[in-house]
Amino acid sequence: MNKSEKNTSWKEKLHEIIYEADTKEGKLFDVILLIAIIASILFVILESVKSFDAKYHNFLNISEWVITILFSIEYILRIISIKKPFKYIFSFYGIIDFLSTIPKYLSFILIGTHSLVALRALRLLRVFRILKLGRYIGASNNLMLALKASRAKIAVFLFFVVIVCVILGTVMYMVEGEENGYTNIPVSIYWAIVTLTTVGFGDIAPQTALGQFISSIIMILGYSIIAIPTGIVSSEITSANAKPDLNTQSCPNCLKDKHKAKATFCYNCGSILNP
Amino acid sequence: MNKSEKNTSWKEKLHEIIYEADTKEGKLFDVILLIAIIASILFVILESVKSFDAKYHNFLNISEWVITILFSIEYILRIISIKKPFKYIFSFYGIIDFLSTIPKYLSFILIGTHSLVALRALRLLRVFRILKLGRYIGASNNLMLALKASRAKIAVFLFFVVIVCVILGTVMYMVEGEENGYTNIPVSIYWAIVTLTTVGFGDIAPQTALGQFISSIIMILGYSIIAIPTGIVSSEITSANAKPDLNTQSCPNCLKDKHKAKATFCYNCGSILNP
Amino acid sequence: MNKSEKNTSWKEKLHEIIYEADTKEGKLFDVILLIAIIASILFVILESVKSFDAKYHNFLNISEWVITILFSIEYILRIISIKKPFKYIFSFYGIIDFLSTIPKYLSFILIGTHSLVALRALRLLRVFRILKLGRYIGASNNLMLALKASRAKIAVFLFFVVIVCVILGTVMYMVEGEENGYTNIPVSIYWAIVTLTTVGFGDIAPQTALGQFISSIIMILGYSIIAIPTGIVSSEITSANAKPDLNTQSCPNCLKDKHKAKATFCYNCGSILNP
Amino acid sequence: MNKSEKNTSWKEKLHEIIYEADTKEGKLFDVILLIAIIASILFVILESVKSFDAKYHNFLNISEWVITILFSIEYILRIISIKKPFKYIFSFYGIIDFLSTIPKYLSFILIGTHSLVALRALRLLRVFRILKLGRYIGASNNLMLALKASRAKIAVFLFFVVIVCVILGTVMYMVEGEENGYTNIPVSIYWAIVTLTTVGFGDIAPQTALGQFISSIIMILGYSIIAIPTGIVSSEITSANAKPDLNTQSCPNCLKDKHKAKATFCYNCGSILNP
Repeated sequence: MNKSEKNTSWKEKLHEIIYEADTKEGKLFDVILLIAIIASILFVILESVKSFDAKYHNFLNISEWVITILFSIEYILRIISIKKPFKYIFSFYGIIDFLSTIPKYLSFILIGTHSLVALRALRLLRVFRILKLGRYIGASNNLMLALKASRAKIAVFLFFVVIVCVILGTVMYMVEGEENGYTNIPVSIYWAIVTLTTVGFGDIAPQTALGQFISSIIMILGYSIIAIPTGIVSSEITSANAKPDLNTQSCPNCLKDKHKAKATFCYNCGSILNP
Repeated sequence: MNKSEKNTSWKEKLHEIIYEADTKEGKLFDVILLIAIIASILFVILESVKSFDAKYHNFLNISEWVITILFSIEYILRIISIKKPFKYIFSFYGIIDFLSTIPKYLSFILIGTHSLVALRALRLLRVFRILKLGRYIGASNNLMLALKASRAKIAVFLFFVVIVCVILGTVMYMVEGEENGYTNIPVSIYWAIVTLTTVGFGDIAPQTALGQFISSIIMILGYSIIAIPTGIVSSEITSANAKPDLNTQSCPNCLKDKHKAKATFCYNCGSILNP
Repeated sequence: MNKSEKNTSWKEKLHEIIYEADTKEGKLFDVILLIAIIASILFVILESVKSFDAKYHNFLNISEWVITILFSIEYILRIISIKKPFKYIFSFYGIIDFLSTIPKYLSFILIGTHSLVALRALRLLRVFRILKLGRYIGASNNLMLALKASRAKIAVFLFFVVIVCVILGTVMYMVEGEENGYTNIPVSIYWAIVTLTTVGFGDIAPQTALGQFISSIIMILGYSIIAIPTGIVSSEITSANAKPDLNTQSCPNCLKDKHKAKATFCYNCGSILNP
Repeated sequence: MNKSEKNTSWKEKLHEIIYEADTKEGKLFDVILLIAIIASILFVILESVKSFDAKYHNFLNISEWVITILFSIEYILRIISIKKPFKYIFSFYGIIDFLSTIPKYLSFILIGTHSLVALRALRLLRVFRILKLGRYIGASNNLMLALKASRAKIAVFLFFVVIVCVILGTVMYMVEGEENGYTNIPVSIYWAIVTLTTVGFGDIAPQTALGQFISSIIMILGYSIIAIPTGIVSSEITSANAKPDLNTQSCPNCLKDKHKAKATFCYNCGSILNP
């Protein structure tokens, strides 16, 4: 066994641990990473609380450095152990890994980049990568298929909602005007979205009778059309759940498929189906 | 070929480009129009932002004139190229085209008609005309059928919601009175709609114990009855999706229709169905 | 034909006009009554708007007297033309008719009963009586059956919601206390209902970290459990819509019913079904 | 019959009355307990209303002592009459019973434990124990099965919602900052939950253009994804309602089960099914 082969096998093992979850080591790596991510997010959150940061600033700073270095090592190992490093680096999770590791180093070089520090919250997105390999997906598999199937319809619906909000926002800008808080059309569109989605912050609210009348229409519209995405998804999930009643075998005689799960005879030609 | 024939064929070609999307030129026309509409809407929105308008007023003004002139030419070409011009002029889109083109000219004649300028946002409605010719409708075709089928039921529901809001609004006007912000019945009805649709701005909120009790009932009512439009639409979409499993052919022997899409034999008399 | 018979037939005709909508006169009566009710409601609403009332006080006052007298005559005719007057007087609509007619007379006798005047808004409930005889019910018939079928489940759900709100409201009273607006437990329960139903007025909002954490749980709970009434109603409407596929005839041989609407042979014994 | 046997039978009878609802005495006990719980909750609520407590303090105090002593006796009887007392004491309802009885005694020993007094509201949870033995569960049985079946999917959904709120809350903390009310990341996450669940208190609202844009996306997201839990539950209830159409008997010849409720012949082999 020459050096190159040994090297490759070492890389392969690392790849198995980091990228897969079939082996004992792979699972252990995932669990440790999951704990590190959650701990790291907790530190980011606690750091933002002034009273907590004042007391435990040193502890938080050191913990953050430890986690940042661990993530940096992981990032380098991921690049080393994969065959096509650039494919990883420019993949979605590759960019997330980079963006969620770099802020601490930047805060060392550049003073006053406090706002960048919160980029570390992107680490939470990494949780999805780990869980993708896990058991949760089974439960939501049909759900994902249903959501994918209804993607186009939901997009048409959202497109319609946005156009309605732009038009009604502009109308409200004309009706209420700057003196009632509708300072410009973007703000009015923001208000229309707040109203149509039934959020209703109340930071801006109609003052004129006509404005309140138009608002009432927007609210009833928003209250009614929420039925549309709900109906689409309900229907897709119902049909996704109904499908498992058909099995995937094809008739040995006429090759028709989509037989009922418990059928013994082909619905098309009457031949006996394979058990 | 005399002049009249030549003229007609010229008009026909123009009609094909403007009103249809089957030819290459027709599609190009639609794409350009779509870009012009979206650019125009963006200018209307940006113009309303004071800080932006102050800096780029001349640019916005000139752009608006260019787009207005382009839309005016399009409007005239639409009238010329159609056989029954008045049918177009008084159609829904004809009126939208006119209303969304005229404000800029009016602002030239009448000083201080700033509020009319926002009428240009109606141009956004024109987007629907272009997309009607496009590919999005396929995705939402079943959806449209389902919504049409549930129109009557949704209307009954909205009628019920409005009556409930009028009665409860009046009751709240009696209970809370002017001193708590329920200045008159229309305002109280507006508040009842805000509450029933779960928007909840909070610009007006009940202050008395009885008012808060009635509000609680309105809120729980609104939270529960949203199930009704959702249920109607879900059910309609489910049945609209279920229908394509039946084909439209009828049995050559007994004339029964609504066979399963993949059926070979008639479910009624057992004759072989046409392939 | 003696006097008694003539009298009876006169009463019968009146009964037909007032209580039924089969004859031409009956329909006309309903339409006039509908217009009078809507006009009357508009007057009640407009009277509450101070600026409008100041200008047109006399017009509103006279109109109201005209409508009140008309409704009084109708009320008396309803009592005369029915065989069991007390059954009508103490029925739901009988009480509504009385309560919505009496306030104007009371305002004549007692000075300063302004708040009672709004009782006239109850007239709107009378609209349901007229429409019950009309065409709208057809569209919502299946819907009504579905809602009736899901009544018990919705009641259990609302019972659960109310208990959750009482417990969480009390917890928030303990956590936030009077200094943050949760002045007593009823107010806290009101706030819990505002939050759970996703209305969110914002007149009371949690200020402490623990209060905001509990609020977050209430909000996510409210956001999730709205799926329950929606699911119940969706499911009921779907099955109510699915039922018409079964016809009501029974097999002439074995008496089994619930055959498919288009079935020719009995699914149970194979006899030919009546066409 | 010796003393031990007599004692046991006395305990058994007590157990039957307290823990079961089959006998007349058992039902009476449940009804009295239910009334005592509801009365007790009303007293807790009324005690928190300052104006009421000022007037009727003595009445409330004495009533509370009576109810507390009654509940104490019930608690002791429950321990005596059960075979494994510790299993009861450390069960869910055992802890609830203890926690909802003890505050009044504590208020006697420790002055100023007012906030603990509201713990008595936990008594409301005891209502579920009584009703569990009652008739309501029948109506919601299918519902419970449907909710249990969709538990895993709902959990995945809520997990997704929480992660989205953590990320978007952090982003809003970066964008809006402390000067606009987003004082720290936990508060921003709280705000993100308020917005995504369409509650929208408005105690914190975005002030910057970018913040309002991100808020708009959060709101449209929240407005759309509510379709997911609703779709899951709708689908589960629909299939739970559909299942009773299949009976549980198996074919005596081929042992296949899941026959239609009214089937006479086996769908698989044609044998006659047991009636």
